[in-house]
Amino acid sequence: MQAKTPEQSKTILTDMVLPGETNPLNNLFGGELLARMDRAASIAARRHSRRIVVTASVNHVLFSKAVPLGSVVTVEAKVSRAFKTSMEVFIDVWIEDRESGEKSKANEAIYTFVAVNDTGRPVSVPAVIPQTDLEKERFDAALRRKQLSLLLAGKITPDKATELKALFF
Amino acid sequence: MQAKTPEQSKTILTDMVLPGETNPLNNLFGGELLARMDRAASIAARRHSRRIVVTASVNHVLFSKAVPLGSVVTVEAKVSRAFKTSMEVFIDVWIEDRESGEKSKANEAIYTFVAVNDTGRPVSVPAVIPQTDLEKERFDAALRRKQLSLLLAGKITPDKATELKALFF
Amino acid sequence: MQAKTPEQSKTILTDMVLPGETNPLNNLFGGELLARMDRAASIAARRHSRRIVVTASVNHVLFSKAVPLGSVVTVEAKVSRAFKTSMEVFIDVWIEDRESGEKSKANEAIYTFVAVNDTGRPVSVPAVIPQTDLEKERFDAALRRKQLSLLLAGKITPDKATELKALFF
Amino acid sequence: MQAKTPEQSKTILTDMVLPGETNPLNNLFGGELLARMDRAASIAARRHSRRIVVTASVNHVLFSKAVPLGSVVTVEAKVSRAFKTSMEVFIDVWIEDRESGEKSKANEAIYTFVAVNDTGRPVSVPAVIPQTDLEKERFDAALRRKQLSLLLAGKITPDKATELKALFF
Amino acid sequence: MQAKTPEQSKTILTDMVLPGETNPLNNLFGGELLARMDRAASIAARRHSRRIVVTASVNHVLFSKAVPLGSVVTVEAKVSRAFKTSMEVFIDVWIEDRESGEKSKANEAIYTFVAVNDTGRPVSVPAVIPQTDLEKERFDAALRRKQLSLLLAGKITPDKATELKALFF
Amino acid sequence: MQAKTPEQSKTILTDMVLPGETNPLNNLFGGELLARMDRAASIAARRHSRRIVVTASVNHVLFSKAVPLGSVVTVEAKVSRAFKTSMEVFIDVWIEDRESGEKSKANEAIYTFVAVNDTGRPVSVPAVIPQTDLEKERFDAALRRKQLSLLLAGKITPDKATELKALFF
Repeated sequence: MQAKTPEQSKTILTDMVLPGETNPLNNLFGGELLARMDRAASIAARRHSRRIVVTASVNHVLFSKAVPLGSVVTVEAKVSRAFKTSMEVFIDVWIEDRESGEKSKANEAIYTFVAVNDTGRPVSVPAVIPQTDLEKERFDAALRRKQLSLLLAGKITPDKATELKALFF
Repeated sequence: MQAKTPEQSKTILTDMVLPGETNPLNNLFGGELLARMDRAASIAARRHSRRIVVTASVNHVLFSKAVPLGSVVTVEAKVSRAFKTSMEVFIDVWIEDRESGEKSKANEAIYTFVAVNDTGRPVSVPAVIPQTDLEKERFDAALRRKQLSLLLAGKITPDKATELKALFF
Repeated sequence: MQAKTPEQSKTILTDMVLPGETNPLNNLFGGELLARMDRAASIAARRHSRRIVVTASVNHVLFSKAVPLGSVVTVEAKVSRAFKTSMEVFIDVWIEDRESGEKSKANEAIYTFVAVNDTGRPVSVPAVIPQTDLEKERFDAALRRKQLSLLLAGKITPDKATELKALFF
Repeated sequence: MQAKTPEQSKTILTDMVLPGETNPLNNLFGGELLARMDRAASIAARRHSRRIVVTASVNHVLFSKAVPLGSVVTVEAKVSRAFKTSMEVFIDVWIEDRESGEKSKANEAIYTFVAVNDTGRPVSVPAVIPQTDLEKERFDAALRRKQLSLLLAGKITPDKATELKALFF
Repeated sequence: MQAKTPEQSKTILTDMVLPGETNPLNNLFGGELLARMDRAASIAARRHSRRIVVTASVNHVLFSKAVPLGSVVTVEAKVSRAFKTSMEVFIDVWIEDRESGEKSKANEAIYTFVAVNDTGRPVSVPAVIPQTDLEKERFDAALRRKQLSLLLAGKITPDKATELKALFF
Repeated sequence: MQAKTPEQSKTILTDMVLPGETNPLNNLFGGELLARMDRAASIAARRHSRRIVVTASVNHVLFSKAVPLGSVVTVEAKVSRAFKTSMEVFIDVWIEDRESGEKSKANEAIYTFVAVNDTGRPVSVPAVIPQTDLEKERFDAALRRKQLSLLLAGKITPDKATELKALFF
């Protein structure tokens, strides 16, 4: 299996915020954004692996900015690192001001997908070769996130989480 | 108002075909694809004009290829030419094979939007400056399409449709 | 196969405009109306052919009138002419004022459908016998539209489009 | 206010059964059909009264026939009788076989709507003048249904329900 | 088959009223509430019978209270009585005031479901053993409702509807 | 403001998995489950605070178990701890086998919401008083999660995350 760059899995989903998707303050529901990000990220994981993919986990997601009704929202997803059968997908979300055309970062999130065959069994996926500085930084951080994830799930003991522990010293 | 390139309005909407959107042959409904294209194209028109935009017309659309359930569909829209208050948007639709990763053209379509102010009155929009050969070709053809549109609506007489008539001689 | 009148395929879809289907001016999205028209027209084509039908093309559609939130929209579709395996469906759209009860024409559109068997292969459909003056007029114009469609798709040369050329002289 | 015939409020909503609306046996959900009937019936009540209308009650509804995925369903609603501020709407539901084109009755239901002004207060509505035998029969039965409804709601005592009691003797 | 209590089938569906589900007065559509009640009630019937269930009928439903946009709506369904292959499900609907937290009854309704096997044939279901006073009262009333239902459907004659007739004397 | 127990904010959303919400393996999309959990959790946060609430963050979510088409899914949300203006909501997800009636844990997740006034400004919320052992355990862990969240967002330095560091020693 040939390794791929994050660019090769890049997936863009640009769409509007419609009235049926907003809360009492007329902003996009958090849950609706989580669902859009899942759709874009799963397409990125599928483009990287050329397999059926299923959502395995969602990393910590911070909603730093409200997304008002009528906004144009761009969700951009790229596979940031691959492990044996799983892929971490990094998602950036922008909204743009209609009048000035200015884009601003509304959110970022990290989802993990597992590639499976037709019966649902995990299968191997290609490696990721990061190209840009940002891609390299995200590639490195992906290992720490995986350790945290395994640690929180009780699948490794704290002393194995070498890169994660380094955060505290 | 500063003229813009088609690239500046480029809008990409990549999404899957879900079971609720398919006909008895398990292919995407034509109507559902028309609605997705309208959403992507209206965002492109809005990016070009930075105004509220409303769909004015849909040019002849040919459904040459069925889009099966589970496909990843990429709708790409760019403003191809601007007239006084209206914009022609050219839309290309691709689907990709999950296993080979190959993309194939599934459809193309042309929508026209009018930019309006908050009370719904038409307002002027920037000109388009095509860059690539394809963009130039589409820019030129847009005039013939406008003539055909005006002719069919009975707003001009055949002898004014100079570029269009040239098709027949 | 016995020929049928347009009345025999007449299909009416009356429904409201809900908040989730409107743009920033609180009018029905063009794309949403295109999807409703596709559903009504495909039922008309199915009633005429008693076959599975798929959307083949959409003729030039003009959005002449905004359809506000809360409107009652009536979409009426009838097969206007049949060719070997395809059917042209003419669609009229009305909205009505709640207080006065007055109906006004909001739109008209023309879709073409192909009848297929279970494996997706085109199959023959009955002829259409127009009855009213309007049905006869639309029946005649359908041939010119077909020629234009074939011409734009590059499937016939301009000199074969006899009825269409006549428009210009 | 001028009385109207049931025909003047007739509302037809023809649409397909899509995959997202079906139960494990691949038939239309009862709840989905209840919602479609409510939409058609409320348009009929609005056409009769030219007012905003709200659903007041649903009479006994029997689901006698399953409606399979892919069916064409026709919901036809007409105001059968008007009381001071309320209207009884009779709804007939047909499905048709694609191959034979045969229509069969799938359901019938009765909804009651109240006409209100912009602040939600009930307002008077025109009377109904039934024309056909079926319309007359439904007009007469409407009174018995109203008595049953009031009786079940504890708003009248059994001895006032003259027409209803007659059923038992 | 072991009899069950109503509590064992209790099903709670708490959700918000979103903008796409409201009428011109910004209240939840009657039809939308009918559909939510059908979903909750069918889960209750399924929990009681552990079978596929289909909606057989909807008893008289009164909409006594408007449900405004943004409300939290709680639909609670319990099987109130079982007959040979059918189950009556009683549904209570509450809305709650956001500021005071006070709950108020918005609606109640009764649906009947039939348990079926994979080919759609009715199958037997367990009996219901009511526990609370309210459950016992609803259990008793269920028989009268069944008689009324059979009577209205013309399946029994008035003299067989013993419990129902008692209402009038 | 009076402190509340987790039970006082408990919110249950029981619903089916419909065909329009499933991936190519016929299991519920991860993104759809994230959206349902957001709706239930936001109602719990609203019940605790009696305020408008907005999603602030989603903690690490693990999808340990596929949720097949037709499943009955129960989402149960309770506020586990409150900070000044924010609330951590713990969500448990169960699915149940139709034939055996057995429930199994499909997922758990933690969302954080902020209470806001009508202009979107954060406002204080009542404290939480955990009652059961599980509620107490989740209450304690909430502090560690908050520290991790602040640490990952760069808002505190590692040495302030006392409870979190304890995990590693």
